[in-house]
Amino acid sequence: MENKKPITIIKIGGNVIDNPTELALFLNDFANMEGFKLLVHGGGKSATKMAESIGLTPVLIDGRRITDAAMLDVAVMIYAGQINKNIVAQLQANQINAMGFTGADGNLIQSQKRNHPTIDYGFVGDVTHVNSSLLQILVNTGIVPVFCAITHDKQGQLLNTNADTIASELAIALSSHFEVTLNYCFEKAGVLSDSNDDNSVIEHLNASLYANLKQKGAIHSGMIPKLDNCFNSLKQGVQSIKIGQRQMLQNNKTICTTINL
Amino acid sequence: MENKKPITIIKIGGNVIDNPTELALFLNDFANMEGFKLLVHGGGKSATKMAESIGLTPVLIDGRRITDAAMLDVAVMIYAGQINKNIVAQLQANQINAMGFTGADGNLIQSQKRNHPTIDYGFVGDVTHVNSSLLQILVNTGIVPVFCAITHDKQGQLLNTNADTIASELAIALSSHFEVTLNYCFEKAGVLSDSNDDNSVIEHLNASLYANLKQKGAIHSGMIPKLDNCFNSLKQGVQSIKIGQRQMLQNNKTICTTINL
Repeated sequence: MENKKPITIIKIGGNVIDNPTELALFLNDFANMEGFKLLVHGGGKSATKMAESIGLTPVLIDGRRITDAAMLDVAVMIYAGQINKNIVAQLQANQINAMGFTGADGNLIQSQKRNHPTIDYGFVGDVTHVNSSLLQILVNTGIVPVFCAITHDKQGQLLNTNADTIASELAIALSSHFEVTLNYCFEKAGVLSDSNDDNSVIEHLNASLYANLKQKGAIHSGMIPKLDNCFNSLKQGVQSIKIGQRQMLQNNKTICTTINL
Repeated sequence: MENKKPITIIKIGGNVIDNPTELALFLNDFANMEGFKLLVHGGGKSATKMAESIGLTPVLIDGRRITDAAMLDVAVMIYAGQINKNIVAQLQANQINAMGFTGADGNLIQSQKRNHPTIDYGFVGDVTHVNSSLLQILVNTGIVPVFCAITHDKQGQLLNTNADTIASELAIALSSHFEVTLNYCFEKAGVLSDSNDDNSVIEHLNASLYANLKQKGAIHSGMIPKLDNCFNSLKQGVQSIKIGQRQMLQNNKTICTTINL
């Protein structure tokens, strides 16, 4: 079997996006990383702010926020337009040949409108296919893909999709072409064994330790679906996952959580 | 010398963009065109509408509209986000592997902020370089590029650029790799020999006839810089230019103006 080349996929969220100084620092660290790489960014607060400034009121059904047509339009403008293109321009200034994408571009990420028996989520898409053959051609050409969290249904409809999901679906799909490391940058230094103690980062997490910590109740609530998703990606071919703050990219000594099967 | 393959570059403006029915008809015609192709779209009226709805007032200096930072932000959201991504999604539904770009993506179109001795145009860029080697790789991979009229200065700044200029600069740059036909779709059926008579379309225009019609005053005002620009593109390697309505793509019998040297 041919040796696969490594690629690093990094997902950043609102905490990095909403702060221009943090974003510039992150993009500088990202630019300095060696080897193949790919960036996925969430939306941050700008879409909500824009929706407010044009007088949209959030549509709630059973307490759940719905992506109606007007809100999707705002998400496309802000995520695929404002945020994505400014990140690409900043990476270009850092000598990185970035190219910004939605899932519609090159049919890179196809999804279907979520079809739930009781809840109408609106224009929200669940990923059905990643065009990994085209994506690997782009990466091998020296392009650094930058994905926002917009996909399409191949019928002409753009759809809003969770950025964490996009990162893990890209990681799984690319693992047939590359040795994939997936990094989730978030506000904490890693997965905590005590959610009240920021110094309790679990530096190495594997499936058996995870089962153990879940049973003891040390890992609970919101972290469970996130980590279940991580172990699912690892089972589907992703080599390694890291969770932590921006600094983990810059310096191998920075504490973060590394997850392996 | 190697035989160059043909590519058709089409520029559409506000009259097509602002009318969803016209746009869908155009995209269907565009999808049905054979061979390599590339689309450049202008902005239409949505950016002005969005600027109004968020309370921006146009900045005018000496009667000239200025692209200030807030207006640039709106242009990026609308052109690179809303318009570009909806066109890409619609082309994907038409089985075309479209990919949407600003000049920042892949450093495809670099520009510099316009430096005029007396007029400050704001965030407006004049094209300095087209990355035609990357663009031809993408086209040869089966991708149909869709460009909006946003470029960048490679220093992190996005810039607003005239869509007609983007189309002609792409046409000139790609003429070293392809035999390029450039089509400008606009509201008239072609270049008119009598600007008050829509039936006076000049079907074939060359440099000597142009010089003659200019001298007689039959071609005047706004058409002169447009046509000077066309002849300049032809001198720089573009094979042929057509000017007319959408229907010229669909049917060779439709009247339009074909320009050659």
